[in-house]
Amino acid sequence: MSSFHEPTPGRAHWVYTHPRPDSLNRHLFDAGRAALAERYEVTVSDLYAQGFSPALGERDLGSLAGHPGNLAELTGQAYARGEVEPEVRREQENLAAAELLVLQFPLWWYGPPAMLKGWIDRVLQTGFAQGDLDAATGLPRRYGDGRLSGRRALIVVTAGDDQRTLGPRGVSGDLDSLLFPLTHGALWYVGIEALDLHVVYDADGIDRAGREHETERLVTRISGLPQERGRPYRRLLDGDYGRQTRTLDPDIHPGRTDLAIHYAD
Amino acid sequence: MSSFHEPTPGRAHWVYTHPRPDSLNRHLFDAGRAALAERYEVTVSDLYAQGFSPALGERDLGSLAGHPGNLAELTGQAYARGEVEPEVRREQENLAAAELLVLQFPLWWYGPPAMLKGWIDRVLQTGFAQGDLDAATGLPRRYGDGRLSGRRALIVVTAGDDQRTLGPRGVSGDLDSLLFPLTHGALWYVGIEALDLHVVYDADGIDRAGREHETERLVTRISGLPQERGRPYRRLLDGDYGRQTRTLDPDIHPGRTDLAIHYAD
Repeated sequence: MSSFHEPTPGRAHWVYTHPRPDSLNRHLFDAGRAALAERYEVTVSDLYAQGFSPALGERDLGSLAGHPGNLAELTGQAYARGEVEPEVRREQENLAAAELLVLQFPLWWYGPPAMLKGWIDRVLQTGFAQGDLDAATGLPRRYGDGRLSGRRALIVVTAGDDQRTLGPRGVSGDLDSLLFPLTHGALWYVGIEALDLHVVYDADGIDRAGREHETERLVTRISGLPQERGRPYRRLLDGDYGRQTRTLDPDIHPGRTDLAIHYAD
Repeated sequence: MSSFHEPTPGRAHWVYTHPRPDSLNRHLFDAGRAALAERYEVTVSDLYAQGFSPALGERDLGSLAGHPGNLAELTGQAYARGEVEPEVRREQENLAAAELLVLQFPLWWYGPPAMLKGWIDRVLQTGFAQGDLDAATGLPRRYGDGRLSGRRALIVVTAGDDQRTLGPRGVSGDLDSLLFPLTHGALWYVGIEALDLHVVYDADGIDRAGREHETERLVTRISGLPQERGRPYRRLLDGDYGRQTRTLDPDIHPGRTDLAIHYAD
């Protein structure tokens, strides 16, 4: 069994999540995917338009539906049997082929919409995305070393709050921390490195000029993606965390408990 | 228009999210709701069993479906017109009546399952949950002062990781920070104070004895709920945040940027 999906150079997969055809997000999506298509072969998922089902459940167990047992193990068995729902299989194939993933969504209640969370819950299936054990250390291949390692992700997110409200010490919490479950807990867990967030602040009241400015800014960002360098988190296998405790070495950022300690720096 | 829903003393609403009938979560749910029913009049939502639809979209706009405009504004207009889907209306009524909310779920990818995120996205609708402007300060009534203020929430969450992995400096990030978008960004935003998390660690490999121990621990916790004191976050209207900047006063926890600075202490 292969422990790693080899990406195809020049392939990108854009997962778009917004329900409304006249939204700022749709405008950014249309311009952004066109810009991306100049540099990558792009596959696209428009989750609302496709009617993607976000609730992981019995349907994800194939012929094991209704069998007793642990959900993660059963989905892993279903994956090994090739019993994967077509809408999930399609996402897995496009994600496995891509070297670049784009996740675009509006910030709802300081996180991704349920639709995108469901894409994470269902597509990053045991057996497909999660790494096995590393023989040398006995540690699981996770956080930097999953089956999808070697990929990068651009997160494009629109927010109603302004930049200070979502910045360090802002009342809403800083956006890097709010999205840590996505960038670190989901993407980095399976080996995908998230680039710096691409955030559109004050998105609710944006006017036509602001929309054009943000479109231009996104297109410029996308033009530079092939050369862009990210800021990776620490790899579990690199020894920064205790092998038994899985907590950060006390000599690294001593005393700090904010989530930014997990950047490799 | 009332700006505040008055809870009914002694009413509680338990929102349960797990797809499997033989799960640890189901076991905890059955025992927990029985214990809660000794002290509260309990309404229950079993989101998977009810077939709750987690994707906020056009259906939430009533007769405004298909109209151009901002989604949050349109859902607010739909609420004002009374055009709310029955499954959402039922949740709003039970939540508005309750003085205590229980949210129970397994931690999937370091956050709530899509099903529960969708409950947040759809039920905490503009007009129902979000506060209006405070005349004295010109600030919005949010973070401690929404239309649902005066309520408390118990979060019961099962996790596959152990306590150190999910603790301060643990490789997965500390659970209080990982769930900050739920406890602060959603609940506290509309005025609901989350009590200390009730966490079941190492949940995947738990044996019968462990399950009974965790059941007993949950029942004991629930027995003490009427007297339990929480650890509230700061209220936006209390002046700890700059009125223009909405960032924490530089004299409070100077230099710190972790999310725990938002606790009132």
